Formats: sequence, structure tokens, C-alpha cells
Amino acid sequence: MLSHSSVDRSVYLAERVAAVRRTTLAMLEGLSAEDCMLQSMPEASPIKWHLGHVSWFFETFVLEPFQVDYRAFHPRFREIFNSYYVGVGSRHPRAERGLLSRPPLSEVMAYQESVSTRLLELLQNGRVDDSCLDLIELGVHHEQQHQELIVTDLKHHFWHNPLLPVWRDCPDEASTTLAPLKFLFYESGQVELGHAGAAFAFDNERPRHRVWIEPFELACRPVSNGEYLAFIKDAGYERAELWLSDGWDARGREGWQAPLYWWQEEGQWLCFGATGAKPVRLSEPVCHLSYYEADAYARWAGARLPTEQEWELAANRYAQSRDGDNCGQDFAEQNRFHPMAMNAQAGFFLGGVWEWTQSAYLPYPGFRIADGAVGEYNGKFMVNQMVLRGGSCATPQSHIRNSYRNFFGPGSRWQFSGLRLARS
Amino acid sequence: MLSHSSVDRSVYLAERVAAVRRTTLAMLEGLSAEDCMLQSMPEASPIKWHLGHVSWFFETFVLEPFQVDYRAFHPRFREIFNSYYVGVGSRHPRAERGLLSRPPLSEVMAYQESVSTRLLELLQNGRVDDSCLDLIELGVHHEQQHQELIVTDLKHHFWHNPLLPVWRDCPDEASTTLAPLKFLFYESGQVELGHAGAAFAFDNERPRHRVWIEPFELACRPVSNGEYLAFIKDAGYERAELWLSDGWDARGREGWQAPLYWWQEEGQWLCFGATGAKPVRLSEPVCHLSYYEADAYARWAGARLPTEQEWELAANRYAQSRDGDNCGQDFAEQNRFHPMAMNAQAGFFLGGVWEWTQSAYLPYPGFRIADGAVGEYNGKFMVNQMVLRGGSCATPQSHIRNSYRNFFGPGSRWQFSGLRLARS
Amino acid sequence: MLSHSSVDRSVYLAERVAAVRRTTLAMLEGLSAEDCMLQSMPEASPIKWHLGHVSWFFETFVLEPFQVDYRAFHPRFREIFNSYYVGVGSRHPRAERGLLSRPPLSEVMAYQESVSTRLLELLQNGRVDDSCLDLIELGVHHEQQHQELIVTDLKHHFWHNPLLPVWRDCPDEASTTLAPLKFLFYESGQVELGHAGAAFAFDNERPRHRVWIEPFELACRPVSNGEYLAFIKDAGYERAELWLSDGWDARGREGWQAPLYWWQEEGQWLCFGATGAKPVRLSEPVCHLSYYEADAYARWAGARLPTEQEWELAANRYAQSRDGDNCGQDFAEQNRFHPMAMNAQAGFFLGGVWEWTQSAYLPYPGFRIADGAVGEYNGKFMVNQMVLRGGSCATPQSHIRNSYRNFFGPGSRWQFSGLRLARS
Amino acid sequence: MLSHSSVDRSVYLAERVAAVRRTTLAMLEGLSAEDCMLQSMPEASPIKWHLGHVSWFFETFVLEPFQVDYRAFHPRFREIFNSYYVGVGSRHPRAERGLLSRPPLSEVMAYQESVSTRLLELLQNGRVDDSCLDLIELGVHHEQQHQELIVTDLKHHFWHNPLLPVWRDCPDEASTTLAPLKFLFYESGQVELGHAGAAFAFDNERPRHRVWIEPFELACRPVSNGEYLAFIKDAGYERAELWLSDGWDARGREGWQAPLYWWQEEGQWLCFGATGAKPVRLSEPVCHLSYYEADAYARWAGARLPTEQEWELAANRYAQSRDGDNCGQDFAEQNRFHPMAMNAQAGFFLGGVWEWTQSAYLPYPGFRIADGAVGEYNGKFMVNQMVLRGGSCATPQSHIRNSYRNFFGPGSRWQFSGLRLARS
Repeated sequence: MLSHSSVDRSVYLAERVAAVRRTTLAMLEGLSAEDCMLQSMPEASPIKWHLGHVSWFFETFVLEPFQVDYRAFHPRFREIFNSYYVGVGSRHPRAERGLLSRPPLSEVMAYQESVSTRLLELLQNGRVDDSCLDLIELGVHHEQQHQELIVTDLKHHFWHNPLLPVWRDCPDEASTTLAPLKFLFYESGQVELGHAGAAFAFDNERPRHRVWIEPFELACRPVSNGEYLAFIKDAGYERAELWLSDGWDARGREGWQAPLYWWQEEGQWLCFGATGAKPVRLSEPVCHLSYYEADAYARWAGARLPTEQEWELAANRYAQSRDGDNCGQDFAEQNRFHPMAMNAQAGFFLGGVWEWTQSAYLPYPGFRIADGAVGEYNGKFMVNQMVLRGGSCATPQSHIRNSYRNFFGPGSRWQFSGLRLARS
Repeated sequence: MLSHSSVDRSVYLAERVAAVRRTTLAMLEGLSAEDCMLQSMPEASPIKWHLGHVSWFFETFVLEPFQVDYRAFHPRFREIFNSYYVGVGSRHPRAERGLLSRPPLSEVMAYQESVSTRLLELLQNGRVDDSCLDLIELGVHHEQQHQELIVTDLKHHFWHNPLLPVWRDCPDEASTTLAPLKFLFYESGQVELGHAGAAFAFDNERPRHRVWIEPFELACRPVSNGEYLAFIKDAGYERAELWLSDGWDARGREGWQAPLYWWQEEGQWLCFGATGAKPVRLSEPVCHLSYYEADAYARWAGARLPTEQEWELAANRYAQSRDGDNCGQDFAEQNRFHPMAMNAQAGFFLGGVWEWTQSAYLPYPGFRIADGAVGEYNGKFMVNQMVLRGGSCATPQSHIRNSYRNFFGPGSRWQFSGLRLARS
Repeated sequence: MLSHSSVDRSVYLAERVAAVRRTTLAMLEGLSAEDCMLQSMPEASPIKWHLGHVSWFFETFVLEPFQVDYRAFHPRFREIFNSYYVGVGSRHPRAERGLLSRPPLSEVMAYQESVSTRLLELLQNGRVDDSCLDLIELGVHHEQQHQELIVTDLKHHFWHNPLLPVWRDCPDEASTTLAPLKFLFYESGQVELGHAGAAFAFDNERPRHRVWIEPFELACRPVSNGEYLAFIKDAGYERAELWLSDGWDARGREGWQAPLYWWQEEGQWLCFGATGAKPVRLSEPVCHLSYYEADAYARWAGARLPTEQEWELAANRYAQSRDGDNCGQDFAEQNRFHPMAMNAQAGFFLGGVWEWTQSAYLPYPGFRIADGAVGEYNGKFMVNQMVLRGGSCATPQSHIRNSYRNFFGPGSRWQFSGLRLARS
Repeated sequence: MLSHSSVDRSVYLAERVAAVRRTTLAMLEGLSAEDCMLQSMPEASPIKWHLGHVSWFFETFVLEPFQVDYRAFHPRFREIFNSYYVGVGSRHPRAERGLLSRPPLSEVMAYQESVSTRLLELLQNGRVDDSCLDLIELGVHHEQQHQELIVTDLKHHFWHNPLLPVWRDCPDEASTTLAPLKFLFYESGQVELGHAGAAFAFDNERPRHRVWIEPFELACRPVSNGEYLAFIKDAGYERAELWLSDGWDARGREGWQAPLYWWQEEGQWLCFGATGAKPVRLSEPVCHLSYYEADAYARWAGARLPTEQEWELAANRYAQSRDGDNCGQDFAEQNRFHPMAMNAQAGFFLGGVWEWTQSAYLPYPGFRIADGAVGEYNGKFMVNQMVLRGGSCATPQSHIRNSYRNFFGPGSRWQFSGLRLARS
């Protein structure tokens, strides 16, 4: 017999499933079927593929094992929309996702609807145990991750079109001056970090564990565009002594001279975003930096990047000082998909831009990979990547928390990745 | 004052322009805007791009210079739809043509219509001289070349979709047995080759010139699938002594074991075409071969590829014997886009499959490149390519002739490229 | 006036300099000038280049700044023998070090002798302050690092010669059976790690700092060839679920099926080493593994790699239990350049094979990069690499210690890199 | 019984074998074993490898089949010194020839001596038939080809050393002014081309065949450095309209701005050669050009490259006018390995620099590949290459003739490759 709490949880998850999938579909507004085909690099998938993949995840890990007599929506989708789950079978090559004109977008939207309907049936007709509910909850968060990727991938796709397409039309905020950067001091001590409690978290945020932290200082907000421009003007991109060796090589090989999506026209710095081409606003947090650029900037500024432990400790302290609230409003729910000016946001640790830490993405002490194909979710990527913390203007607010660990290779620039300075 | 013949020619060309552009649009039937975005390799352009490019050609070389006060349909199309004309200005990178979701297909179709209208106005309102008419005629033939590329590129794009989309639905012909291959003997002698007369021909078919030809034999038809299968079964792909050195390397690097679009399932050879996956038919001409494979097959068969001079001489003789008619019916007009069985076609030199010759693509004696950007049409590609003759099932019949020189790199396989055997 | 201790230190360092440089020259025994030219990959330098580079280091950082009126041995050596010090000026490309037939080996040996003579003059004629002595001491340890690279690079170079040249002729030890692997338990607690005391250490081993460690178990010795063969026989190289995602890709791309330098002949596993081709001995520690292979093996064995903190803690405990002695005898001084069987070595943490840890190579809390070009020594490589601990059969015994941090990219296999298992 | 002429031919060939192999050894003068190890690119082999390969050729094709009880000098040399003869068995990878420090140069010289001795024994003890003598004669010419490659490869190797080593020390000729370029007119007509008579020629020069040639003009001498400098100054390297499309791409990709081995210092053009760095002499023939550069220069000069048929016809006419002598003195026998000023050489077709023709390297009508491994000598390279004619300052005079066809890819620049202008 199912427990009372499973029934409550089913009701709760039915609402979450409905809401998150409605949001995904709403994101397609303003995009044509042609836009949803684009693939500008192997790492950035077509929007249509993201749409199919989030349904694939529910179908593969929830509907097929838990719904009696489930018949696949389409026999080939198992292969076409598998991302990297070797345990599930063969996959369509990642770099060729943009070559799938068939199924058409309309069919993938029908897939989305069909999977939603079946999921809600499963939840309403009840009789699902916690292992199934866990997977549905994972699927909700998984879909939210892909919502952010839809934003960042689409931006990268459109960047390759000389017409610089406009996706969202938002009014500009009034521009105000940013207060100078302040550092806050944190004493050394032993702390517990990692996700605590029963609420949902990814496996890589667990287990909670003890850490000794040496004294450090952390900036009250991320670095701004204005501050980053001073680095550029001080020849930051031409001075090898500021860079990690691999970063210096990447800079030369890729021809980096500014953040991704920036260029200069007649002395003015412009950038590309959801609203097309615009002047670079000084009071916004700088983003679309690689780890190498973030690291070089920090060295130039006489500082360093924080470790993820320092970052989480400071974010937790800030949240405690505000009764748990350390979110600003700079999240995907704004539907702007571009960071807000920091004047009103100063202090918040969540939202705006992801912040590179100097921590490599590695397992916490006692981490164990889950059994089965879902075990491929996080653990197998724990090498060659650096941790980012805090979420961005493209992250759903309900998706992020202080213990959340995002991770990308040190040369990646197409996420909303910025930095916050630390000092020993 | 314009000559009488210019007026007649205007009327004639107005009909040709209208017909060829109608045909191009008709080819899009059954294709979605998503299908028209596909780009499976840098060499194979999206169908939407082909559509824009053929209008770009008329706009750039005819409307802009010859129509008074002509205003470009879209200011950025000059760059987006330029293929390789350095003299016309900068170009969107070839490998990124598949990243142009904007302009949408509907806008490119409007472009097609607008350019057609303006062209017909120009021709009807008269007052165009021969230099302009020459360019319009060139544009017609240029568009026919792209009609063939639409077929071959689309086939390549669809090949990358595991669903193996079907484009055309044609009934299969009855299968009959092919008569054994015969060789015809040609005596040595001096002949005139290259395009003769005033009718349209590309610059690379001219000037007509004298050639001495040693005695040779030429097969009465191209090599069939059945004959090529014997080569495969005789380990043709594993015997280095049959291959050119560069071909042997390409074979290993690319993993060739059969023509492009062929694969084996449970002992049966299948191939992919406009009607999806089908068994390989023995009596069709083999195609989608690289020059290297054609050359290796010929060596295995104790023969060789003909030179383009030998081929043209034989095709001319055949045409003379039939009062000028050496076309079968295996052309794009059939709308099958797959070679017909050769039983009924034996003897014809035009249509079916392109035939690799052993001649490198080089200028004829006395060849001169035209002035201006149009001079980039053919001449600048005269290196690293081999000549193919005869046209294919994807070539419009009104486009091909005995003196026509097609050319591709020796490793190319996505055209309908087969071979005919010769012997000294 | 120089302190008394500086004088004592000068005497000490004069002996060290003389000894280490004698050793470097002695390593060339049995090698021809042709052998010393070899460069099998960009990462593995020619022996002649190593020889020039260690002298270049002393010349550039000691003789030029500290010896009055010093005149460079050769004006172009500053460029030719610079490794990666951007601050020192331009460098000959790393991948082309094997193209320097001039200067001949004899001239580079004269360079070695000249620099040694000048260094000893500088030290004997006294009047060198601690900053200079620090650099000389650094140069001694730098040269020892290159001694190890001479061994590992030469092995890689010779591996590309189908004649499989023999470099050293050592008698085989008697083969004995290895005792089963045991794990030792370590309680959680706060410890101090990193280099302590005034003796020489590299900057990356400092500063000493506090760390909290959760309870763990660590194996009493590295994994053996025999144990690793069981992984191979259990299809360890074919099971994706055992591998990190990047590791699985590297395995496929590089075709790994066993450790580097291993191959199979008639059912027997052979390996290549300083004594040429030999059967794989079961009781030796396995080595020439990438991080990816070490990690996959550990997962297969139901264990994991230790962190570098766990490793250092355990090594320190072991040393305490033996009055500070935790060295076996398996070091470069043996002149065997191949790991010994572990029977007699069990328990030791230093020597034999380097042990991959699951720690990324990152700065310790409070780490600062030194000013000037010497600051490029370690700090700029702190990304994309994993830490190895313990030294190997190619490491000079006087060079290694518990706090020593070696680092390589996770795909590197040409060092003597093995592993020791840990468990939470 | 052997014919009388076979005996005479044996005597003749014994002298030739002795002379050519003495010359090869003499070329090593001034080179160290380290120099002979260099390999700067896969296409340019180490000198030691060339030395081994020419002996391998005699051993494999003459001694093993024709000498009774022949025992290989070294069992592994069959693999190590095989160039591209698939029929002979596996080969050491071309790009790794520079990694063979063993066998040492001294052993390869002993191999050279041993093979010479055996060859002479075979010839003197007689009883060798014509098929064997043919192979010995082929081996002599094969070795001469490698003598030229020793010169061009060594130049390329040394170019990668910033010390720019000097190989030969020759006095400079007095500099004189070059007479303006003249064109000679040739009428159209049918001619016989290709090698005639019984004397040695490579298979690709045969069979002799009839060709119809249209009227043309040909320059009386190759293009000079001075003339080529005018092309550079006229922005020849920046004007796309002068270049073949593939050439324009190669130019950009490789960064070409002048011939290989040229660079500018303080306004002066310098070049690298056998005597080290020297100013560019205006009256020398320009060389180290790719086909693309030669073609672009010709277009810039309002001319074109000749076909190989035009070239051979003109060279034959010139020779007839001088009783067969159309050699200057600018050959390898001068031991200068750098082209002479053209003042005294004007008119000659042989020697100095190779001349690119606009002819692709293809078989003559009736060409047949020889049976067996020797058949791989020429025929399998008949694609993707252009023909060069005339020999160079690095070609032995006894090796060259009017019908000689050399061939390289259109992007190759490390041969002494220049051009002579033609006009229709």
C-alpha cells in the first residue's frame, strides 16, 4: 500500500510537471520551426532536440518502466533523443542533431503533449511508489536544466546569423551608477557543506560533509562590465603573466579579445543578446567568460576566484541573515534572458550570472553513483570541468539553491558565466 | 538600336526564365522549411540557400547593373547568398549556410518571385543588349545546375537522418536482364572537339580545337550495379594493387566498402534514394562512386577510364548515327531522381549517370577567362578536379550536351557519378 | 656581509650541484648522438634538449643575473633551450625540438660543463646571497625533474622504433608471489598538510594548511600487474559504465586496450622497458596508465582513487611509524628504470610508481606565485591536470618527499603512473 | 646463354652502379649523424633513410630475387626502408622515419657498402639476364632521384633550425644584368612526343605517341627572381583574381607572401640555401614556388604556364638546333645546390630549376603499369599532381632528358620549382 505522503507528493508533482512543461512550450514563442533546427556547434543542441529530449527522459525513465503496457510514442525516438546515456542504447551523434529535419517540430510538440498526458495519468491514477516519484521529480529538474540550455544554445545559434535575430523585446532599465566593490571577511573554521535535508537535490550536491576553511574575503557582488572593460583597456588579453598556460593558448587559438558576444564598432563596445545588438551596459555583471578569462581577470585585480566551499559558506551566511531569502529577481521567470544591472541586486548570491569557482568538479567525500542508467546523470563528468555556482538570468528560480553545482570545461563561454572575486 | 535578333532572343529567354524558375519552385514540393535548412557537409548546401543563390545570381549580374534604379530586395542578401565570387564582396562562410534560419523559407520564396518578376519586366520592356541577354542566359543555365545540386545535396542531407526520409514516390520499373557489355572500336585520327556553333555553352567548353586521338575502344553503356557487385565480391576494396595511391588512402580513411548510400542487411545490399531504402537493382548503372573507385574498378576489369576527348568523340559519332539524338529519357524531367535500369537506355551517352573520365579539368587550348566577376564562374577551379561527362538522372535534359564538362574532386561521391570502360 | 649559514649552504650546494650534474651526464651512457635527437611527440623532448635546458635554467636564472660580466655560452641558446618561460623571451617551438641537429650533442655537453664550472666558481668564490642560493637549489631540483623526464621520454622515443632498442641491461629479480591486497583504516579528523619546515620544497607544496578529512581506507600497496590483468580479462576496456565520459572517449579515440607499452603475442602479455621487450611480471605495480584507466580500474574494483590529502596523511603516518623512513629502494639510483616486484616493497609510499589521486592540481589555500619568470615554474599549470604522489623508479630518491605534488593531464600515459585504491 | 650485349651492358652498369653510389656517399660530407636524422615534415625524409632506401631498392628488387642464397643484411630493413611498395609488405610509417635513431648512420653506411659489393659481384660473376639488368638500371636512376631529394629534404630540415646551418661553401658568381625576356613562336602541327629509342627512360615517359599542338609562344628562359619581385610588389599575393580558387585558399591557410625560404629584413629580401642566408639575387631563376604561385604569376604577367607537350616540343627543337645538346651546366655535379644566374644559361631547357607545366600528371595513351611491385613505381601516383619538366641544380646531369616527367602536388614548394611563361 502506498503511504499517505506518496499520495501528497503525487499531487504536488502533478502540478510541478504540468507547470514546468507548460513553461518549456511557452519558451518556443517567437521561434519558427527553422529556428528550432539550428545547431551552431556540437555542444549547443537544436531547440527541437531539447524539446524531444526532455520528453525522452520521462518516457525512458518513468513511462516505460512504470506504466503498464506503455507503447513508445515513436520507435526511433529512443535513439534520436538520447543524449549521453550509454546504458539506454545507441544514440544519434551529438554533432548531427541539427540534421534531423524529421521529425518536424509539430511532431515533437505532439510528443511533448503525449508524454505530459501519460505522466499526469500515471500520477493521478496513483499507485506509484517513491522510486517512481523520485524519477519524476528528477525529470522536472532535468527539464529546467534544459530550459536554461534552450536560452544559451539559441543565443549561440543566432550569433552565427549575420542578421543578428531578435528573440525577446524587453524595455531597457534606467541606467544608474554602480557602487564600488566591497569585500566581506570570513573567519576560518569547520563548516558543514553540501545539501542538507530531504528536499530535492542532485546527487552531486551530496552527501553533506565537514570542511575546514581558512580565513578569506569575498566580494559583495560579481564583477561588472565596467570593471572588466578596465582589464581589457589595461591590455589584459595581451599579458601572458596574467593567464594560466592553457588559457593563454586558448586565447591565442580562439582569438579572444573580449567576452563572447562582444565586438567593437567605432570605438563603442556592443554585445549581442536576446534583444539583438546593444551597447555594453557598465553596471551589468560581466558574463560569457571562460574560466581562463575569469581567472586572468582575478589575477589582474590582485585577487583570485573563490573555492566552491568558500562560495557556499558565504551564500549560506547571507541567506541566514535574511531568513533564508538570498534570491534577487534576476531569473528566467523575468523572460529577459539577459542580466539586470546590479544596483538593485547587490548582495544576492543567486541569479544574474553563474560564478566560476577555482574548484574542479569532483565528488564529495562519500559520493556514490546511483545504479542503472540514471547513474550516468552527473558522476561520469567529474573530470576536466570547473564548478560554477549561483544560477543566472536564464535559470528558473525554483531550480536553484546554494548547494547547486553547475560545471563546464574551462574554455566554455556560451553560458551566462561571470565571476566574483575572493582574497586569502 | 537593338537588333531584331535581340528582340527575338528576349522573347525566347523570357520563356526560358519563366520555365526554369517554375521548375525550381516545383522541386520544393514535399519539403518542409525544416528540410530546406539541412546542411550535412560544407560542400552540400541547404535547399533554401540554393533557392536564394539562384535569385542572387540574377540580381547581382543582371538586375543591379542593367535595371535602372534597381533597389536590392534585401540589403544583406548580397553577402548571404554569394557562393564564391570574391569580386562581389564578402560572403557568409560556406560551412555555416545551414545556420541561416532567418530569412525564413517564405521570404526566400518571395525573393525568388520578386526577382522573376523584375527579370521578366526587364525582358519585356525590352531595350536590353546582348551582353545582358548573355548574362540572363547564363543565369538560366546556372539555375539548372543548382536544380541538380538540390537533388544531390538533399539526398546527402536526408542520408544523415536515421529515419531515412522518403522524398519521391515512384513505381519501380519491371526488372529485366541486362545484355553483356560490348566494346566499340574507334580508329585514330585528328578530330575537332569542344563546343561548336552559336548556341549557349559554358566558357570551359570552348574554344573548339583540334586533337589527335589514338585508337581506342569504348563500352556501349556504363558499368551496372551487378558488374560492380562482382568487383566488391572479388575483394576489390581490399586489394591495394587495384588502386591509385591517393585512392587507397581515401578508402582507408573514409572506410569505403561500397558506393555511397549502399549498405548490407542480412546478406542483401540496400541503397538509399529519393524513394527511401530499396534493394540494389542489378541492371541500373552503378553510381555515387568516387573517381578512385571508378579507376580501381576499371583496372580490375582490365580496362581504364576514357579520356574526355575519347568520350566526346564517341558521343558525337553516336549522335550523328541518330540524326543528333543521343538522349535517352533518364533526366530530371522524369522527377524520379534515381537512375533507370539500362535495358532500354543502352547506347545513349546522355542521362542516367555522370561518367568519370581520366582527364583532369584543365583549360582547352586558347581558353580565356571572362572579365569581371562572372569570370570566376569556371576558370578558377581548373586544378585538382577530374572531368565527368554525360549528365545524370538529376540533370535537366535541356541543360546537357556532348561537349558539357562537369568536374569534381577525385574523392567526391555525392553526385550521380558512375563510369564507362575504355581500352587502348 | 653574508651570513655564516649562507657560507655553509654554499658548500652544501656546491656538492649537490656537482653530484646532480654528474648524474645527468652519466645517464647518457649507452646513448648515441642520434638517440639524443629523438622526439616522438611534442610532450616528450629530445634528451639533448633536456641536457641543454637544465644548463639554460642555471644560466638564465643564476649566472646571468648574479655573475658579474657573465657572457652567454652561445647567444642563441637562450631561445633554443627555453621551455615555457614567456617572461624570458621567445622560444623555439616545442614540437620542433627534435629538429635541432645543431648544436651537436658534443657542444651541448660542453655547455653543461661550462655552466657547471661557472656555477661552482660562483659558489666557491662566495659572496652569493640567499636569493641566489635559493635559485641554485631550485635549479638542482629542476635538473632532477628532468632526469626523470629523460627516462620517460627516452622510453617513449624508443617505443616508436620497431627494433625496440635496449637501453639498460639488468638481471631479472626472482619472481615470487604477491600477498593479497589489504586496506588500512584512517579515522576522520583535522590534520595539517603541505610542506613543513625550512628544507627545500616547491612552491606548490606550500603553504602548510589545515584540512578536515572524513574516515577512509587506503590500500597497503599499489595495484599490481596481475590485478590489472584481471580487469582486462573482465572486459574492463569494453564496459562504458566503468569509465568517466571523457575517459571512454579517449579510450575509443586512442584505441587503448591495455597500459601503454603492453601488447599481446600468442596469448602472452609483453611489455617494453629499459631492457627491451619482456613478459609482463604479475607482482610488479601496474604503470603507464592514464588517470582515466586508473579511475576505471578503481570503480571496477569497488573502490576509488584517494584524494591527495588522504594519500599524504597516510604517507605521513607510515613515516612516523618508521622514524621518518618511508622509502623503499625503487628509485632512479638503482639505474633500472623499471618498477621492482612489490614483494619486498610493500608498505612504502615513495618510489616504484607514481600514484594517481582523484585531486585536481589546484593551489593550496594561501598559495602565491613568485615574482618574475621563476613564478612561471608551477602556478600557471594549475588547471586541467590531476595530482600524482609518491615518485617512481625513475625519480631520484633525494628528490622525493611525502608532500611532493606531481601533475599531468588525465590522458597522459608515458610517466610511470599507477594507482593505489581507497574506499570511503 | 646470355647475349653478347648483356655482357657489355653488365660492364657498363657495373661502372654506373659504382659511380652513382660513390656520389651518394660523397653527398654526406659535412653532415653529422644527427643531421642525417632530421625529418621536418612527413614528405621530407631523413637523409639516413634515403641512404638506406636506395640500398633497400637494390636488395629487394635485385639481390633477393637474382642472387642465389642471398641473406638479407638485416631482417628488419625490409620493413624500415620500404617507401611505398605495398606489394613488398608492411612499412614503417612515413611520418616516423625521423624516429629511427637505430640503426645508426654507420650501420646504414655499412649496408650501402655491402649492397654495392654484392651488386658488383652479381654483375661481374655474370649470368644475369636482361630482366635483372633492367632492374639494376632502374635502381641507378632511382638512386639519382633520391640524390636530388637528399638536397631538397636537407634544405627543408635545416630551415627549421633557427641557427640556419650552412651545408656548402661556394663562392658567389659575379652579378650581371639579365636581358629582357623574349618569346619564341611555335606553329601548330602534329608531333610525336614521349621517350623514343632503347635508352633508359621511366615507364611514365612512354609510349611515344602523336599529339596535335595548337600554335603557341614560349619564353626563352625561366622567370627570374627580379621579375617575381615585381609581382610581389604589385600585391600579387593579395589579389584573389590572379589565383586559382584552391591556390587562394592555400595561400591564406599557409600564410604565403613570397617563395619558400624567402624573408625580409630591414627592407631587403633574403633567402636560405645550401650556403646559409643570402640576399636574393635578381638574375637567378625564381624557385621554391608552388604550382599555385607559378600559375598566379603567369596570369599576372598576361601569360600562362605551358603544357608539358608544348614544353617538350620546344626543348626538342632547341636540342636539334644544337646537335642534341641542350644542357647548360647548372646541375648537381656543380655541388652548389643553388641555381646559377641565368645570364650564361639562357636558352637551355635542362638544369637550373624545374618548370611547372599546366599539365596534370596522367598516363600517356597506351601506358601500361608493369607487373609486380616495381609497377608501383610511377603509375599509382597519376592523380592530384602536376607535371614539372627540365631538372634543376640538384638533378644529376646524367639523369635528366627532355622527355623526363617529374610530378608534385600543386601546393608543394620544397623542390627547386620555378616556371617558364607561355602564350597562346
